[in-house]
Amino acid sequence: MLAILGGTGPEGKGLALRLAMAGETPIIGSRDAARGAVAAQELSQLAPDVDIRGSDNSGAVLQADVVFLAFPYEGQRPVLEDLGPALKGKIVVSVIAPMKFERGKGASAVEVEAGSAAQEAQDMLPESQVVAAFQNASAEELLDPTTTMDGDIVVCSDHSDAKKLVMELADQIKDLRGVDGGSLANAKYVEQITPLLVNINRIYKAHSSIKIVGI
Amino acid sequence: MLAILGGTGPEGKGLALRLAMAGETPIIGSRDAARGAVAAQELSQLAPDVDIRGSDNSGAVLQADVVFLAFPYEGQRPVLEDLGPALKGKIVVSVIAPMKFERGKGASAVEVEAGSAAQEAQDMLPESQVVAAFQNASAEELLDPTTTMDGDIVVCSDHSDAKKLVMELADQIKDLRGVDGGSLANAKYVEQITPLLVNINRIYKAHSSIKIVGI
Repeated sequence: MLAILGGTGPEGKGLALRLAMAGETPIIGSRDAARGAVAAQELSQLAPDVDIRGSDNSGAVLQADVVFLAFPYEGQRPVLEDLGPALKGKIVVSVIAPMKFERGKGASAVEVEAGSAAQEAQDMLPESQVVAAFQNASAEELLDPTTTMDGDIVVCSDHSDAKKLVMELADQIKDLRGVDGGSLANAKYVEQITPLLVNINRIYKAHSSIKIVGI
Repeated sequence: MLAILGGTGPEGKGLALRLAMAGETPIIGSRDAARGAVAAQELSQLAPDVDIRGSDNSGAVLQADVVFLAFPYEGQRPVLEDLGPALKGKIVVSVIAPMKFERGKGASAVEVEAGSAAQEAQDMLPESQVVAAFQNASAEELLDPTTTMDGDIVVCSDHSDAKKLVMELADQIKDLRGVDGGSLANAKYVEQITPLLVNINRIYKAHSSIKIVGI
């Protein structure tokens, strides 16, 4: 079972939708159980055959063996401090790309002392298997079930079985492909592609993503 | 006229070859004029119809209005201190991705105080127009004239005319495409894609590159 924490934001909702369309039964976690339920209901209207549930964060974690972190980076420390014990032994998928926006300058990466949001999560959760993935997938495209997704999901982790499982989840989503991005140290480079894509989106008025070619 | 400084290394040689195949007449610059001439001759044997010349670095700069920096990052400060006055008013294309290799850990990005090698070059050359591009193109593919290049060249600069010219140079190379990557501040993210690709290459035993999809 999959839980999507921060699943009421666009990236989390989009991921829940696509994973549900791929046959999974994601639970959307929110600080507020009612908001989680509303998001689940909204998504069920976008694609009628999907099974998506809502819950508060800790209820979602309890039912899941794979837990996606899809909230903004600012929320990471408090959420993981709170849920750390419940996440023990589970696979934790960091979708987070730490970013800030400045007027006239666009998006830029926020420096993280651990290297990346995913490495910080792994440091905070030594008994979980952290995998970094899906940071570069366009929320707008994920959320539109009529759009063909294009692009690759670069998956980084120091836990090879967990990495393989998340690559297979990516492959399950129609037209997406999981690419082995090596160790969690590489998550930094993948997270920083997100502000680049956000800035390219503004130039081209598009929802861009990346593809690794030549492999 | 184009000059490729550090043109005796694989990335520089590959770029010189592809630009020559696209109809340009690149001059390969080297600290040692004789080595530049040897590299030019080697490339002429790979693709008989190309016109590639060799020179020492300062001779190459003198003849060019667009100068590529294709040497390792470690060489940047001394080379630009030496050639700075000669580069005034010229377009300087930074191909540099600062990287280090550690046994068992693979490639990782070297932190640059200015943000990126390209931003450092612009700081050192306030009267040149620095453009960051071509860092992610595979040297092996550039150097094999029988290979179809695949992938995009993300081009970043704070000088829009210079950026446009370099995007057009990328478009001139068969099957490559220049993508507007916004301001020079974004060069950091593009430079850091290179160690990611190097690590992916090791996993897949491939010569990978990136494509921006959805634009």
